This record gives sequence, C-alpha cells and structure tokens, in this order.
Amino acid sequence: MTVHSNHKDDFDKAPRSSYFHLPPLDVSVAFPQATPGSTFPPCTSDYFLFDDLLTPEEQAVRLRVRECMEKEVAPIMTKYWEKAEFPFEVVPKLSALRVAGGTIKGYGCPGHSIIGNAIATAEVARVDASCSTFILVHSSLAMLTIALCGSEEQKQKYLPSLAQFKTIACWALTEPDYGSDASALKTTATKVKGGWILEGQKRWIGNSTFADVLVIFARNTTTNEINGYIVKKDAPGLTVTKIENKIGLRIVQNGDILLQKVFVPDEDRIPGVNSFHDTNKVLAVSRVMVAWQPIGISMGVYDMCHRYLKERKQFGAPLAAFQLNQQKLVQMLGNVQAMFLVGWRLCKLYESGKMTPGQASLGKSWITLRARETVSLGRELLGGNGILADFLVAKAFCDLEPIYTYEGTYDINSLVTGREITGLSSLRPPTLSKRSRL
Amino acid sequence: MTVHSNHKDDFDKAPRSSYFHLPPLDVSVAFPQATPGSTFPPCTSDYFLFDDLLTPEEQAVRLRVRECMEKEVAPIMTKYWEKAEFPFEVVPKLSALRVAGGTIKGYGCPGHSIIGNAIATAEVARVDASCSTFILVHSSLAMLTIALCGSEEQKQKYLPSLAQFKTIACWALTEPDYGSDASALKTTATKVKGGWILEGQKRWIGNSTFADVLVIFARNTTTNEINGYIVKKDAPGLTVTKIENKIGLRIVQNGDILLQKVFVPDEDRIPGVNSFHDTNKVLAVSRVMVAWQPIGISMGVYDMCHRYLKERKQFGAPLAAFQLNQQKLVQMLGNVQAMFLVGWRLCKLYESGKMTPGQASLGKSWITLRARETVSLGRELLGGNGILADFLVAKAFCDLEPIYTYEGTYDINSLVTGREITGLSSLRPPTLSKRSRL
Amino acid sequence: MTVHSNHKDDFDKAPRSSYFHLPPLDVSVAFPQATPGSTFPPCTSDYFLFDDLLTPEEQAVRLRVRECMEKEVAPIMTKYWEKAEFPFEVVPKLSALRVAGGTIKGYGCPGHSIIGNAIATAEVARVDASCSTFILVHSSLAMLTIALCGSEEQKQKYLPSLAQFKTIACWALTEPDYGSDASALKTTATKVKGGWILEGQKRWIGNSTFADVLVIFARNTTTNEINGYIVKKDAPGLTVTKIENKIGLRIVQNGDILLQKVFVPDEDRIPGVNSFHDTNKVLAVSRVMVAWQPIGISMGVYDMCHRYLKERKQFGAPLAAFQLNQQKLVQMLGNVQAMFLVGWRLCKLYESGKMTPGQASLGKSWITLRARETVSLGRELLGGNGILADFLVAKAFCDLEPIYTYEGTYDINSLVTGREITGLSSLRPPTLSKRSRL
Amino acid sequence: MTVHSNHKDDFDKAPRSSYFHLPPLDVSVAFPQATPGSTFPPCTSDYFLFDDLLTPEEQAVRLRVRECMEKEVAPIMTKYWEKAEFPFEVVPKLSALRVAGGTIKGYGCPGHSIIGNAIATAEVARVDASCSTFILVHSSLAMLTIALCGSEEQKQKYLPSLAQFKTIACWALTEPDYGSDASALKTTATKVKGGWILEGQKRWIGNSTFADVLVIFARNTTTNEINGYIVKKDAPGLTVTKIENKIGLRIVQNGDILLQKVFVPDEDRIPGVNSFHDTNKVLAVSRVMVAWQPIGISMGVYDMCHRYLKERKQFGAPLAAFQLNQQKLVQMLGNVQAMFLVGWRLCKLYESGKMTPGQASLGKSWITLRARETVSLGRELLGGNGILADFLVAKAFCDLEPIYTYEGTYDINSLVTGREITGLSSLRPPTLSKRSRL
Repeated sequence: MTVHSNHKDDFDKAPRSSYFHLPPLDVSVAFPQATPGSTFPPCTSDYFLFDDLLTPEEQAVRLRVRECMEKEVAPIMTKYWEKAEFPFEVVPKLSALRVAGGTIKGYGCPGHSIIGNAIATAEVARVDASCSTFILVHSSLAMLTIALCGSEEQKQKYLPSLAQFKTIACWALTEPDYGSDASALKTTATKVKGGWILEGQKRWIGNSTFADVLVIFARNTTTNEINGYIVKKDAPGLTVTKIENKIGLRIVQNGDILLQKVFVPDEDRIPGVNSFHDTNKVLAVSRVMVAWQPIGISMGVYDMCHRYLKERKQFGAPLAAFQLNQQKLVQMLGNVQAMFLVGWRLCKLYESGKMTPGQASLGKSWITLRARETVSLGRELLGGNGILADFLVAKAFCDLEPIYTYEGTYDINSLVTGREITGLSSLRPPTLSKRSRL
Repeated sequence: MTVHSNHKDDFDKAPRSSYFHLPPLDVSVAFPQATPGSTFPPCTSDYFLFDDLLTPEEQAVRLRVRECMEKEVAPIMTKYWEKAEFPFEVVPKLSALRVAGGTIKGYGCPGHSIIGNAIATAEVARVDASCSTFILVHSSLAMLTIALCGSEEQKQKYLPSLAQFKTIACWALTEPDYGSDASALKTTATKVKGGWILEGQKRWIGNSTFADVLVIFARNTTTNEINGYIVKKDAPGLTVTKIENKIGLRIVQNGDILLQKVFVPDEDRIPGVNSFHDTNKVLAVSRVMVAWQPIGISMGVYDMCHRYLKERKQFGAPLAAFQLNQQKLVQMLGNVQAMFLVGWRLCKLYESGKMTPGQASLGKSWITLRARETVSLGRELLGGNGILADFLVAKAFCDLEPIYTYEGTYDINSLVTGREITGLSSLRPPTLSKRSRL
Repeated sequence: MTVHSNHKDDFDKAPRSSYFHLPPLDVSVAFPQATPGSTFPPCTSDYFLFDDLLTPEEQAVRLRVRECMEKEVAPIMTKYWEKAEFPFEVVPKLSALRVAGGTIKGYGCPGHSIIGNAIATAEVARVDASCSTFILVHSSLAMLTIALCGSEEQKQKYLPSLAQFKTIACWALTEPDYGSDASALKTTATKVKGGWILEGQKRWIGNSTFADVLVIFARNTTTNEINGYIVKKDAPGLTVTKIENKIGLRIVQNGDILLQKVFVPDEDRIPGVNSFHDTNKVLAVSRVMVAWQPIGISMGVYDMCHRYLKERKQFGAPLAAFQLNQQKLVQMLGNVQAMFLVGWRLCKLYESGKMTPGQASLGKSWITLRARETVSLGRELLGGNGILADFLVAKAFCDLEPIYTYEGTYDINSLVTGREITGLSSLRPPTLSKRSRL
Repeated sequence: MTVHSNHKDDFDKAPRSSYFHLPPLDVSVAFPQATPGSTFPPCTSDYFLFDDLLTPEEQAVRLRVRECMEKEVAPIMTKYWEKAEFPFEVVPKLSALRVAGGTIKGYGCPGHSIIGNAIATAEVARVDASCSTFILVHSSLAMLTIALCGSEEQKQKYLPSLAQFKTIACWALTEPDYGSDASALKTTATKVKGGWILEGQKRWIGNSTFADVLVIFARNTTTNEINGYIVKKDAPGLTVTKIENKIGLRIVQNGDILLQKVFVPDEDRIPGVNSFHDTNKVLAVSRVMVAWQPIGISMGVYDMCHRYLKERKQFGAPLAAFQLNQQKLVQMLGNVQAMFLVGWRLCKLYESGKMTPGQASLGKSWITLRARETVSLGRELLGGNGILADFLVAKAFCDLEPIYTYEGTYDINSLVTGREITGLSSLRPPTLSKRSRL
C-alpha cells in the first residue's frame, strides 16, 4: 500500500485552492432573497387568538420574553449552536427577564401562574430551544426540587441566587445504565458521620459542566430508597465531562458525572426526597413545562416558514402560492393551535389540582409527536435552506429530537398514560414464552 | 364453452347445504367475550375533563343527548346501517331531545349556545354519525338558511314545525359537475310571473329522498348570482332518487335531484340569499358543527376500544395489557383531547364574533385529519371485530369518510385557510407552461 | 311520552313524497362526467414494467385473468357487494380460468409457478378483492392443506373436483376466543371407533356457509396437538350461520361454525396435520398469496384514480392538473411498484426454498401497510365518489381492512418477524410488575 | 441596567468549575453498555438476500467497499462530522477502492455495471453519507458530464486523474435564486475571442471549496441556452466560500461560488452541453445513484439499531424484547427491503434503455420518503444515544435531510413523475383567480 501512502502524502501536501481559507459569506449576503432567523420573523402562529385565554399579566410576560428573545438572543444563537458552546453572554439577559424560579412564590422568585410560566417557556423555545432547556433544568427541575422538597434553610440559601442566575444549577437523575428505567438507578448514598458519601455515575446531565450547584439523586444504602442531595461544583471526588457530538440542543452542555467518594454534609441532603415517588412529583410539573418547549419550537418554525414562503420565489411566484406548500403550512398551523390548547388545558388541570401523571405524560407525548411532524414539514418547506441553522428551522428540527426523548420518551410516556387508563402496566418485558406457537 | 355453461347450470341447481338459510347468530351469542356497540360503552374519553369548560346548561344538554342516544338509538342502528335505510322510528326521539334549530332563538327553536349545540352534535355522532348528519342537514344547513336569510313570514311558517321534526328539510347546493367548485353551479332560476322557474340537477343532497321542504340554490338568470328557494316535496317537475352503494353514513339518504321546470312562487324565494357570499355565511356556521361530528365519532370509537381491550383476551391476557395496543389507545385519547379543544376554541371564536372562514376551515380539516387517524387506529385495535358494524368502530371508520369529504374536502379546506394566511389563492389550476424545463 | 308516541305514529303514517320509491338512477346517468368501475379502467399501474420479470406463461395467465375479471366480473360486483351476497354466477367463469389449485401439480390442478399464481391472485383482487379471497380460501388454504398434508387417496378424491370449483371448500382454524392466538384453539377431536368426534366452535370461516367440504382443525384430546379433518357440509351436528354487517369483503360469506358431536370417519382425518407446526406450513404459503391481494387491490385503485383524475373537472381543469392530486397519485404509484417488487422477491425466496416465516410475515405486513395508505389516498382523490362502491375505490378501501387483519394482523406479523430477527419473542403479555416505579 | 452589566461581568469573570476544561470521555467509556458506530455493526439488513440478485463481480465490489468503509472510515467520521471538516485522509482509501468514474468505460475508469455502481454507492452511504455525496458529485455529476458531453480531448485529459482522485471535481448548477427552478439559471457565458467570459453566482456546490476542476453551467448570451464549462480552481475572478452551519452532510463542503469575469478558453467549453436538456441527461443517471444513498443510509441505520437493541437493557431485558421496539425495527427492515428492490428495478430499467425521467424521479422521491421514515424510527429506537453522532443513527438522521432535498426535492420529483403520468404539468403557480368564490 506504499502507493497509497505516497498518494496520501501527495494529497495532503497538494496546495488547496487560493480561496480555501476565505471566510464564509454572511448568509444574508449569500442568499439575499429570504431573511435568516437572526432577524426573527413576527409571530403569525397565534391564529386562534390564544392571547385571549391569558390574563393581562401573562400577556405581559409573554411579550417581555418574546421581545428579549427576538432582539437579544436570535441574532447570536446560530454561532453558539454550530460550535456547541454555551452563550454565557445571554445569562444576564435571561436574569433580567425574571423567568428562573417560575411558579415558585417567595425567595426572590417570580411566582408566575403556571400558564405564565408555560408561555414564557414557549416564547424562549420559539427562538431557541437550547435556552429553554437551560432554564428548565435550572428552574423547573433543580430549583423546583429545592422548593418542593428542600428545607426552609435550603430554600433561603439557594433560591434567591438561583432566581437571579447568580448561581446555576443542574439536576442529576439519569445514569448510563438507567434512562427510561431511571427509578432503578445505582448511584449510592451511604450515611457517614456528619453527612453522606455519594458514589456512582450520572449521564446526560444538562448544565452540569458549569453548574455551581448539582441536585443529585442516589440510592440510600440503608433504606434502598432514592434520596436527593445538593452538591457543590468543586466537591472533591466530583468530575464532570462534556458529552460531545450532539445533533440537537447543541448549546446545552450535557455532562457525564463521576462521583468518587463525594462527601455531602448533612445540611445538603434534601429532606423531602425520600423515595422515587418524591422525584416523580417534581417530574410531573417539569413535564408540563417540557411540553411547552415543542409548542414554542413549533410556533417559531411556523413563523419562519410563513415569512420564508412569501419571500422565496421559484417558477416566477412566491413559494406561498403553490398548493403543496400551502397545505404543509396549514397543517403546521393546525398542529400549533392544537398543541397550544392541549398545553393550556394541562396547565388548567394542574392549577385545579386534578392533574394526574397520565395526563401530564399524555400532554408531553402527544405534543412532541405533533411537534415532530410540524418541524419536519417546516424543514421541507425551506428546501436547501432547511438544512442551515441560520434559517432557524434546521436547528429547531434537530433540537426537537432530544426533547422527544427526554423526560420520558414518546413510548415511555405513552405507556405511563396507558397504564393509568387501562389499569395494566406494560412497561416490563414480555414473559418468557415456554414454547413458540405462531 | 358448453361445458362451462352446463357447469354453471349444475352449480346454480346444486343444493346448497342444509344450513344455508339459517338466521345469523346474534353477535353477542357468536362472540360472547366482548360486548357489542348495541350496549353502548361508558364515556371514558373525557380524559381532560372538558365538562369543566361547559356551563351547567351545556352539561345538561350533553347528558340528555347522550342518554337518549345510548339507550334508544345504539341498539338499533346496525341493522339500518346494514340495510342503508333511514330509521324513521328514531325521529320522535330526536324531536324530544330538542336539538333541531340548535342555536336559533325563537320560532320554537332551542336557542342553545354554540358550544351547547356543538356538544349535542358530538354526543349524537358518538353513537351514530348518520343521525348527526341527518340533524345537521336539517338544522344547521336548511333551518339556519331560513333563520339567517329568510323573511319573517318564512321563519314563522317553517321553523316551528322543522324544530319539532314534524317537517323535515334538506339543503341542495352541490351538482353533478360542481362539488368542490360549488359556487360555479349551473342550476338556473328564471323570473316568471308570480314566481320562478328552477331548472337543473343537484346531487348528493342528504335527506332529499324524503324531505318535506327543500332549500335549493340556483343561479338567477338575470343577475347571474346565486339565489335560494324553498321548494315543497311534491312540486311538479321535481324528482329525487336515492344514491345507493355508499360505504359510509349508509343511514343518511342522499339523493339525485332533477328539477324540470319547477315553479316556485315568489313567497318561497329566500330574500337574503343574493350571492354565494350569503351561502357562505351559512356554511361557516355549519362547518363548525360539522367539525364536531368527527369529535363525537372519535369519542365513541375510543370508548368502544377502551372497553373492548379490557374484555378481549389473547395469549392469556386482556388486549389492554400489550404495549402495541396501549400505545394506539393512548394516541387515540390524545387526539380526542386535542380535537375537542380545537372544536371548543373554534366555538369561542365564533361566539366572540372573531371567527374567520380560514379558521373554520382549519378547524374542520385539522379535526377530520386526526379523526381519520383515530378511527383507523381503533379499527386495528378491534381486529376481526373491527370489520363488523356491530362493534361500532367499523361503522364509524366508514362514516368518517364522507365527513372527511363533505363541506369542503380536506384539501379544499386547507387551501381556503392557506389563502387566508398567505393572501394568495392556489385553488385554481396551474398556468399552462409554455415549455417544460425540468 | 304519549305525545311522542302519537308523533311517531303521525310520522310513520305521513305520506312520503311521491318519488319515495323511484328506482335509483344508474350512476353513469347520475354522474356522467367520470366512468364508474363497471367499465374497468385500463392497467396503468405497471410503471416499472413488471411484465419483464414474468415468463411468457406467467404473462399469459396474467392477461387471461385480467380480461375475464374486467369483462365478466367488474360489471356485476357492486350489486353483490351492496347486498353482501355471493355471486354464484361468477363461479363458472373462475372455473374456466383454471386458477384453483394454483401451484399444485397433478390432480387436475394447473401447476402454476408461484409467481404465476401470485400474479393471478393480484389480477383477481385488482377488480374484486372478495373474489380473490373466495379463491384463496378454497385454493391456497383448503386445497393446499390437502395437497401438502393429505393422503394420496384424499388428494385423488378431492383435488380434481375442487380444481374445477365443482365442489367448494373452506378452511376452519379461528375460534371465537382464539384469533391472533389461534394455536391455542379449543375445538376438540376425540378418537372413537372408526373415526373422530369433533366438538367446538369456529368463527370467521370464509366460504363456510355454502362450502361442500370443510377443512377443520381441532385439538386431539389424546396428544393435545392440533389435527386436521375433512368434514362434509351435511354432517350431522354441523351448523353454519352467516356473519353479517361486515364493512369489507362483503361478498365473502364468513360463517360461525358450530360442531356438536360431529362424526368424522378415519379416512377423512388429514394424516399430515399432527401439530400446529404443520398448519403453519400451509399458512406460510398462503401468507405469500394473501400478500398479493393488497398488491392487486392497490393496482386497481391506482388505475381507477388515474382515469378519474383525467375525466373529472373542477375549477375549469381536470383534477389531474392540480399539485395536491398529482402528489397523491404519484405516492400511490410508488407504493404499487414497491409492493409488487416485495411480493415478487418473496415468491423468489419461496421458490428457492429459502423463505423463512419471518420473511413471509414481513411481506404480508409491509405490503398491507402500504396498501392501506394507497387506498386511503385513492379514497381522497375520488372525493364524493370515493364513498360509492360503484367507483371501485370505496369498495377497495373497505375490502382492504379485513385483509389487513386476517392471516395475522399487522401487529402479529410484525412480532413474528421481530422474533425471528431478534431471537426474542414479545408476543406474550408483559410480566406482572411487582411495583410501579415510573 | 448597570446591575445586569455588572452581573454579566461577574458572570463572565466568575471561575468556572475546576473540571470545566476536562477532555470529554470517549463514548465507549462513558456508555459501555452498547457499541458505538466507530466499531461498525455487521450487515443484518439484507433480509431478502439481495446478494442473490447481484453478479459475482457486483458482490465483490460490494464486499470490497463495505470492508474499507467499516474498517477505515467508520472509526474517524464522527470527529470530522462534528467539526464540519473534510477528511482528506480518506481520499487515498477511496482512490484505492476504484469507485470514481463508476460506470464510465475506459479512461482509467472502472466501468462498473449500473447495479455495481449503485451497490457501491449504498455501501459507502451505509457507513457515511457525506463520503457518498463527495463521490457522487465528483463522479456521477462532474465526471459523467465530461464522459457524456465532453470532447475526446477533454475525456483523455481529465478522466484518468479524476478516476484516481488525483484531481477532484465539483459540478455547479444551482444558484441563489434558482434551486428547484434551476433551468432558469442566470449565470452568463459570453463569447469572446479565444474563449468565454463567465459571470454570475452559484450556491450549494458540493466539493467546490477545494475542487481542482469545476464543471459550471451558464446561459449562453447568444443562444440563451444552457452551456457547460470546465473551470480550473485558480482561475482569476473565481472565488468560493464555504457554506456553514449545516445540520446534515456536515463533512461535505458546499460553497458559494462567485464568478467575476472568469475567462474560460474555448477548449474548456464542454461541447455536448447545448441546452438544459443535455444537463438533464446527466441528472437522470445521477438521480438513480442519489436514490441509492438513502438505501445505504437506511441499511446502516438498521444494522446499528439491530445491534443496539440487543445490547442495551432497560427494565431488566434487552430493548429488543419489547413489542414497541420490535415493531419499529421490523418496519425499518421492511422499508429497507422495498427500497433496495425499487432501486434495483430502476437500475434494470436504465440498463435496458427504457428508463424515463418520471421513473427516475419516482425512484428518488419514493425511496427518500421511506428512508426518512426509517431513520426517524431508528432515531427513536436509540433513545438518548439517538442524538449522538457517535452512534451513527443521529448522524444519518441529519444526513438524510439534504438528500431528501437535493437533485429534486420530494415535491419537485413527485411533480415530474406526475407530469409524465398525467400529461399535465403542475409545476408552475396557479393562475390568478379573478375573484375568490369559496
């Protein structure tokens, strides 16, 4: 194979063309016919006038978040997404929006209604899903765990700073071997004098590579039940490394966490987490919020497609003039209306105290299913520009995939609802057949 | 080929087996494991508690209609459906329900809220879609045209009797050559002394084979605009014949109408119908009601499947215990919740006076699309019994097809919405290309 | 409720309009713009020139069957379908086609190649699926069981007459409580002097209401294994009643069979059926043939739509000129090409002796899935006429449903293939979970 | 907003955690339960034994390409894909495979059968779609244009070096304003003494940032027809810049080309390109090859999922044991079989000289539609690992999107076939409606 080695050498040494290292054109120069997502399109997706279902306060939150996201965040997200880096420059802007701590009352938190929190989530996700996941992990998982299950001291100590994003949190449940089956997790917490020793691994933990505060779930070696702990970022024995090569939510930094004899003082055990049942209480709320991410994503994708079809011309007419394109756009619009209403109703059920886990799972799974269809249609409508993150839709198309999967995959959420409505669990594997008859 | 002719004779003459003309078993005897639709399943499809969105009056209407349909209508519909005959015995029961005239106030009509009328439509369709189409044609098309466009005399003369189903109406717009393109209809109305002469053909007209009163649209030969007329069933020159061989809504009697110099006196011209624009006003409302048919159908199908999966056993367990079945059932349930909410929001938009034609079209098209998926999943869940009308789902599966198509096919409604949101019409055919380049 | 009773009386007594009992118009008169299925459309679905993959003999079979079906059968099937009656007048024509006994060599059977038999099945189904099911039950199930598992005497006694349709057969496996799980059937066969006593029930058995010969499977009370028997139609204790209210394959007569101490002489036990494994051998072949039914159905539906779109005009142009219609038609055409090739390859695998059960199941399930999509698209393309059996597509749309389900539902066939490719069976229900954790 | 500015400063200055810049874990360490794509899974997707349809030579090509791709390319592609860089180190390996020039006979080209070339394309795409696009642009577009339309001198001058990848080519048709409507392109070629002056822009041109030879299409300002030219990389006035932020085929370097008075000598005009019709001849062949990319991608995705489901455990069993997972896997497998057969038949039609443009378009569009479904199912099956490029499926999921769109989007190809089968073009926009009636 000497020849090929030589050839390879030739090849590598060969001068590339003189324009090889020219900087790329800005997309608005290379493709002037349609506006990229950095200039965010106006909101045309609220066809059924949902604003009418919101209180004036909720409407105000919506507009405030929308304005910030469109003006401050939209212009810069493509480059971070491409590089898979987190935009720390955005954090102060999110801080000013007062979205962290969402529905939590007191402790410096905004105390939004659940609808208000949901609509804020959607408006963030409309422009950038990664931002909304960053907030969701920090607020609806980590902060909410402290708010629902923490001691009064913990609340006072952590929530005000978290509410201002002065400190950032993550929430560590999933492990390499326990994803859908998270309740079977193997990380251990062993009681020692003055505290606990955590030992194990976590995987996929959003924000973990830079979080100041890590909420970590582990199995109490005495009770064999799940407990929760607050761990600080520089705790000896704690290592976090970034998970690379993601196709979606590339801005979100997911980490592999290694816990090697990490000591946690007693005061940092979260007293209200005594079994997986307690974890589930947090998940039920966060699942409602997660359901609003695909709603927001779909709104943004629709808005973008709506503008693009009117701007982009082929065969002498705007793309919006063709039957095939109109039908796709209309199907997307119908989905957005329905998703919004399902999300809205879920919030109302939650507010009234009637929401069941099966309802939350149905909301999340049904909405993500329709969102997946919606962004896929949008991807098609944009043609070649549908594969460039600059035009938003490609990015949204990819960002939806992890959302389809996290906080319960489509299948797992289906089966959680299925169990509730039938009274029969089908989550476990089939019985071993003694003989095969078919 | 003499041999085969002989063979044919042999064959026809050959004695069939002795059990050849035995009466069929009742399905509950032949298949005792699961309950057929004649004993209607309880309503388990209201998972997101829509009743909470209804007023007490609307809830009462819902329950009254449901009870009547389950008890009086469910047990007898399969046989009429199979024979494609109309169940005149049901009319007095529908009369007692006070559903005809729906939202019309006064003139002996119930004056329901639009939501109340919608929920009544859904509850009828939940048990039998044909019944709901019968009512819809009579009430939301014919009666509503008189209520919205008729003279005071016409309202007083016709509405009270129609509201009690003492007289039955139909509504004739579509023609053999003008379906999706109905506004181009060719039936003519020519002014003569003391009245008008109608000449032309209508097709697909529901209830027309037995209607006492026919609302008929025709093109005024002077103005070239669409006018409306009330024609009595025995008018000389009027002939109606039944359209046979339908696969769905078999109970609904659709007719071919032939108008040969049919004289209509001046007093029976509907004064408020002066162009297709006026017809469209009626269609906008009826489209909202039509959208509630697939909602009701899907509810009934879900309810039936939910019961069936728990009753029917295979491989030693109820069908409800299997992953594949649970996921289908959950997808159906999610669809029902979303359809209901979209229908509800559409009514609210209508009530507020903000509803646009594009919104009504989106509601109808999006809901029927999801309903089609829902009944198709239901059809699968019932296996072999999914092809028997006795188990409701097969019938519903077929009944949805004409609904998917009437009052604007899925495609036409998509393009109506598409035109509204893009400002560009794509209904007409493409321009003739001078040359083909691709 | 006296009032309503009176009203009811009024209603029933009221004179219906004078045209109430007029005969329906022939559809070609009522709707002259497009040709109904009684004049069968030319074959335009062979876009990828499959004829090139056939031998001259196979091509000749194809054309002979096609010609007969188009000319003799197409004109009369709508009325039988509507009435759910079997067209005995067609049997001599099918007899002349020499399709019964398909691939069986000798005993008066045609000895076609498997491809030849498959293409004949498709050509029958292209015009009428019920006819093809009638043949399939008779030939690929009943005759093939005798040919593969019968004694030499049985073959000589039964096959020649069956090959000419002088006697007609059915094949009885399924029971009320054992459909997907057929191998668990409960009908018993108990050895007595000189023969066997059969006791039990069968359900869904095609052709059974008029079959001369019934192949019946029962569980040997000594071995507990499945055995097979040939039962004559007038055997004492045998009763068959028709299953009514089917939405599809309405021409096929499915029966409920009751076996009450039916005596079968030793000579009529089929010696080669000694376990369900033997039954499965027959099913593997018949499943290949069943897979060709949806291929034929889809071809016919495509052919019909292709003609209809060119004939039917709306908005001043043939429906074929619109983007939305063209795309549906093209998707159908692509499906037909792929289905045909999958069916063809399956036959080749069978011919080479390499076909596995998983492959046959994949062929059947994948093809029916695509066929379901294809006929559903066709249904839409025909608009209102898409719900009339006269225009073929509505009938095909309904006929496909039982085929989707019989000889293994889509789900069951998926899991049979799934078991083969993973080595793990998932047919049985999930294990009972000790506790619910999610 | 001073506070927030300060906060921002604080934030940016704040020390990140000590593990902030740790190198990521190798995925096989972080997630040992399942094998990543760098160790490529065995081929289990050839369920219907397509090898039997290949000649021994074609089988040999298949195995040679597969072995090289699995061993040499699979281990390194994730990192290039993540960085969106081209792996020049792979070129010598592709050179050794002798795949460039595919079906071209002579001039140092391999002269494969079309099936041989197709199967090689699929085997490359099975491991990495970007590689196959790189080859396809170079070989099936650029080289083929020279082979079909070039002069004898051009063939002798360019093809041997291109066949060895000593020089690399690209093919420039699309422009910023002319994508689907490429035949309307605006780049001009003006005759001057001794040659031509090219002026204009091209966009999306694969390989163009480093190609040595660019085949460029331009409109002859005299004839107004499309002509073709061979341009060298360092031609004065030629600039190429990379298109960034792609979500799929990230390894392929697409460029924006700017032609500012680029002089091309007469000898580099391609004499056989005299109208778009000539360009279309090349596109017809390349479209067949493009259709094999999604086949290969789907095979790779299936193979990966098949292994993953057996390795990955949840709820105490391999994922392969669950119904929902099996059904998805089986649906994928069915799609792969059908796609392969459709691709194979298309090649056979081409070989026989009977292939029409509509058939090629149907093949490309139908196959990509099914591939899109297949990779989407695969994405789901891998759960969280389904969003990591390391596990192949996420990468394939993204790579398919540009393929769905290039060489004719799904919609455009549908309408090209639609035009052929109906005789009516629907590519152009609808006629302007004089008035809106619906």
